[in-house]
Amino acid sequence: MIRPVSIHRFENGAIHRAADFVAIEEPLEIRIREGRDGKWTTHAVAVTMRTPGADDELAAGFLYSESIVNSAADIALIEVGGERGNEVTVELRSGVDLDWGRLKRNFYTTSSCGVCGKASLEALEIEDAPPLPTDFGIAPELIASLPDRLREAQPDFGATGGLHAAGLFSGDGRLLAAREDVGRHNATDKLIGHGILAGFPDFAENILVLSGRASFELLQKAWRARIGVVAAVGAPSSLAVELAERFGITLIGFVRDSRFNVYSHPQRVREERDTGTI
Amino acid sequence: MIRPVSIHRFENGAIHRAADFVAIEEPLEIRIREGRDGKWTTHAVAVTMRTPGADDELAAGFLYSESIVNSAADIALIEVGGERGNEVTVELRSGVDLDWGRLKRNFYTTSSCGVCGKASLEALEIEDAPPLPTDFGIAPELIASLPDRLREAQPDFGATGGLHAAGLFSGDGRLLAAREDVGRHNATDKLIGHGILAGFPDFAENILVLSGRASFELLQKAWRARIGVVAAVGAPSSLAVELAERFGITLIGFVRDSRFNVYSHPQRVREERDTGTI
Repeated sequence: MIRPVSIHRFENGAIHRAADFVAIEEPLEIRIREGRDGKWTTHAVAVTMRTPGADDELAAGFLYSESIVNSAADIALIEVGGERGNEVTVELRSGVDLDWGRLKRNFYTTSSCGVCGKASLEALEIEDAPPLPTDFGIAPELIASLPDRLREAQPDFGATGGLHAAGLFSGDGRLLAAREDVGRHNATDKLIGHGILAGFPDFAENILVLSGRASFELLQKAWRARIGVVAAVGAPSSLAVELAERFGITLIGFVRDSRFNVYSHPQRVREERDTGTI
Repeated sequence: MIRPVSIHRFENGAIHRAADFVAIEEPLEIRIREGRDGKWTTHAVAVTMRTPGADDELAAGFLYSESIVNSAADIALIEVGGERGNEVTVELRSGVDLDWGRLKRNFYTTSSCGVCGKASLEALEIEDAPPLPTDFGIAPELIASLPDRLREAQPDFGATGGLHAAGLFSGDGRLLAAREDVGRHNATDKLIGHGILAGFPDFAENILVLSGRASFELLQKAWRARIGVVAAVGAPSSLAVELAERFGITLIGFVRDSRFNVYSHPQRVREERDTGTI
């Protein structure tokens, strides 16, 4: 995930040569292969700039986040290939119906930012999903400890300072998985893709911990995966707060130095734990 | 650029209510209007999640970064409209030929990340551009001082901790312009769009200062605008270093605490200044 670089460092008023590391960023083309009417066709659906590694999980998580697949059962196999390993092909199981209209809506009007916020919000609104459970609580001291525990699972950040991490913790504070990437959305897609491929039963009482800020896009991914609590080391945006408020997610920001802010649904942050539900 | 929120804050072992601010994030649809064969047509080309403000500059900078327009002279007018001010329409001057094939290549295979790195790299390679000048130098002490000076021009960051900034400085350290956004690519597009609309003559001996990390995408924007020096408070990615190395950009990272690292073309970082060229 990192590579060595030769740099010039300025410190104490002088410039000298030094050896350092940078986080690797490479394009990954995500493709879908589907069999229909007796023939196979492959379509490139997206190119993302990512840190190589866990590309199968990234592709699965990305397609899940975009509602193109709904579970691991929709995926027949995932192949990583291409000249530099920069192509990943997800083969859909026969009978899985690809909604090309949706695909086009999701990507055609998508820019260098980002998601098509408006179209995505509309898409979210029409998705029927039961409310997230609120009958569990997470102790504030546990929340405050999560970023340090995520950092411990992030060996390459220390070498480069350039990798975002996303971690999934159980409600009682066990680290279930962590993933790193130059892009925070990619780290989250890898993590959710891992959960889906590994057959995690349900994310509702899990905590998604983010090493950076919480944007609309990340909350959208959390909602799609039905994760009940999102805790970010950085600031949330206004739209992240609105989405969390609306869809019943407890959004926590600025988790650092034994402090944090709760922006929505604070009822899940409490000392007493309803042990019946966890 | 910010809005008030009511939060619960955990500190010193207790939870209490507090008032706070978050950075505003809203979708912006960027449209192009062109007149051809006696009729007007409008096309939505991208939706980006941005912090409202300077949307005309954002649209101009975005279309310039994507090589859809080449200068302010290609733009007849820019209109901001829509129900919540979330639509910006750039009307092209008659005679400006829109390359729909390019537009489709740039956006269709674009994901939630990002740029289509591969297609963009290929596009960059075939663009003919003279090398950036190297006969000017910037004093290391000046470089080390730039992030503090950018921060001074960034009033809303302090209130939210959630806004990225991009600043353009002259080679002798004057702040030419600064822009903020929840997205660092948007802050950079706004800044470059401002430069183009305001008729800045040439960015080659300017310094682009970024409050966060330096990704491929940001270096791509710098190269397109022909900015000679990029200085980031955070880490660069491997592809950012490769692009800077290849296209003659001096890339500086981790500019903080009177230190920094130079990743490419260090010849522009020097005490003595060639006053003939600045």
